[in-house]
Amino acid sequence: MTNDSKAPVTILGLGLMGQALAAAFLDNGHPTTVWNRTPAKAEHLVARGARLATTIDDAVKAGLAIICLTDYHAVHDLLAPADLDGAVLVNLTSGTSTEARDTARWAAQRGARYVDGAIMATPPYIGTPDALILLSGAPVDDQLTALGTVNHLGPDHGLASLYDAGGLTMMWGILNAWLHGTALLRTAGVNAATYAPFAQHLARGVAEWLPGYASQIDNNAYPAEASALETDARAMDHLIAESEAVGINTALPRLFKTFAARAISAGHGGEQYPVLIEEFIKPGNE
Amino acid sequence: MTNDSKAPVTILGLGLMGQALAAAFLDNGHPTTVWNRTPAKAEHLVARGARLATTIDDAVKAGLAIICLTDYHAVHDLLAPADLDGAVLVNLTSGTSTEARDTARWAAQRGARYVDGAIMATPPYIGTPDALILLSGAPVDDQLTALGTVNHLGPDHGLASLYDAGGLTMMWGILNAWLHGTALLRTAGVNAATYAPFAQHLARGVAEWLPGYASQIDNNAYPAEASALETDARAMDHLIAESEAVGINTALPRLFKTFAARAISAGHGGEQYPVLIEEFIKPGNE
Ligand SMILES: NC(=O)c1ccc[n+]([C@@H]2O[C@H](COP(=O)([O-])OP(=O)(O)OC[C@H]3O[C@@H](n4cnc5c(N)ncnc54)[C@H](OP(=O)(O)O)[C@@H]3O)[C@@H](O)[C@H]2O)c1
Ligand SMILES: NC(=O)c1ccc[n+]([C@@H]2O[C@H](COP(=O)([O-])OP(=O)(O)OC[C@H]3O[C@@H](n4cnc5c(N)ncnc54)[C@H](OP(=O)(O)O)[C@@H]3O)[C@@H](O)[C@H]2O)c1
Repeated sequence: MTNDSKAPVTILGLGLMGQALAAAFLDNGHPTTVWNRTPAKAEHLVARGARLATTIDDAVKAGLAIICLTDYHAVHDLLAPADLDGAVLVNLTSGTSTEARDTARWAAQRGARYVDGAIMATPPYIGTPDALILLSGAPVDDQLTALGTVNHLGPDHGLASLYDAGGLTMMWGILNAWLHGTALLRTAGVNAATYAPFAQHLARGVAEWLPGYASQIDNNAYPAEASALETDARAMDHLIAESEAVGINTALPRLFKTFAARAISAGHGGEQYPVLIEEFIKPGNE
Repeated sequence: MTNDSKAPVTILGLGLMGQALAAAFLDNGHPTTVWNRTPAKAEHLVARGARLATTIDDAVKAGLAIICLTDYHAVHDLLAPADLDGAVLVNLTSGTSTEARDTARWAAQRGARYVDGAIMATPPYIGTPDALILLSGAPVDDQLTALGTVNHLGPDHGLASLYDAGGLTMMWGILNAWLHGTALLRTAGVNAATYAPFAQHLARGVAEWLPGYASQIDNNAYPAEASALETDARAMDHLIAESEAVGINTALPRLFKTFAARAISAGHGGEQYPVLIEEFIKPGNE
């Protein structure tokens, strides 16, 4: 392999995502091997220059082995009979941090280097900078730049899943807050498109606070520089009352208030919002 | 009054916020009258050039009357005995859209022009562009530019309260999602400052989607261009499982799932996330 030739890669699993991954590697000139349980899904990739592996052992040894199946059970089913000695596995299947760490141990016992990853993008974005690929475990970033923006998070194999989970929470957290606001404004005849830029502006503004609020958590000191949790809790009561008065769902503001009330009961009413981390780190389902 | 002289204003209520409002008007050269139930709080403003009104009638008639008290009950108690005929009232007290609309009717019956408002900032930001002042009802924006960025939302007096409520939901929605993510990452020893820029990046990215998602709502058509609600729901199950496995609170992802499951039961599993608006606009508290 010369310096400017691309690393050979294999994609195991040609579902919606695996096909997008294979296409991005082909587009970027990587020698690309593909394998799928249902081989018909490989046809158009083979027509574009991919090589169809005949066995899983062949697939895994042909290059960096990128795995993208339904779940970790499928990954274990697929790889159990294979010879993994000396293989380099990049598992982009979605799962939990526990599954990632367990699979890393299992792969190490079988002589493979193992990288766990999470894809924070849908298939149409693969191959563009908007596709964020999170990796953790062994370092292999450079070979994956064909897929999007690659972010290696550290040696703990669980990190990619955890960051992915944090990203999902942020996504649904914002979307639900926006939907709640949109529902509030609809009661006054304001359409969603009129309200959206306001919600967007607010979301960007609040995002700016996060690094400063994070320092409060890391320093375990929560001076009420901008406002005290008690003040927030009163405003939450207003928000619940407003939501109820206009006849929309109140579950979201009630959940805000549940967390705040708990922290106030624990004596944190005069401190600032990030002190709620104490409640979020505790087990519990309400 | 010449063209470049500033409009005379009165601030009724010199709590933390009222004092900041009065100071911003003084800094901007507005002839400023002040009134407070406890007159001692006016002293330093008088020392800076404010005039202390002797009666509420005097206060209300001295200029545009800006009211900033604890709540709407205090506003009604204060203004009940006053002569409001010909007055222009700008009520920046926090309350619900119903209180705002009721107070607008009450003020109209007494011969006053009425503007309702909401301040989306804490006192230290008043007088800077970062202080967002929402107004609805009669138009008076220009006189209030000394306070920050003024946004007049329309003639319905309830709009300022509703947008304010939407803004609060967005604020707590993001902060809670960030805290949940921070709690997840802490289980792997990642500190809050390391995680915050990732959460910030994600929040900004998701905020970008809102105008497009809003069009789906306004068109009442939710094609699954990026992903289907069923796919989201499966990822929500992963998020709940991950949160449980690492031993943190699961209330937030469970609420996400509750809404998604309801919409899927209603037959929307193949549509995109904004279809959840149908659930948010329904009364209910879980
Ligand atoms: N699609 C997205 O938007 C997206 C975004 C981010 C992450 N992801 C993640 O990417 C992974 C794949 O998603 P996808 O959208 O490509 O799913 P998909 O279209 O349903 O494809 C699933 C793939 O897994 C294979 N498979 C399932 N069970 C198997 C088994 N026991 N043995 C061998 N192969 C098996 C399927 O093979 P057959 O073709 O033979 O059925 C197929 O190739 C998932 O973990 C998903 O969460 C997807
Ligand atoms: N502070 C903030 O960060 C902030 C941010 C956005 C919006 N706001 C809103 O601004 C409003 C005022 O907040 P604040 O922080 O200034 O509160 P504050 O410091 O507690 O001041 C309350 C004010 O209301 C007066 N008042 C209460 N009841 C009264 C009555 N029955 N008759 C006459 N005056 C009465 C008080 O007079 P005395 O001085 O005589 O007690 C004082 O001037 C609230 O609606 C709040 O939600 C505040």
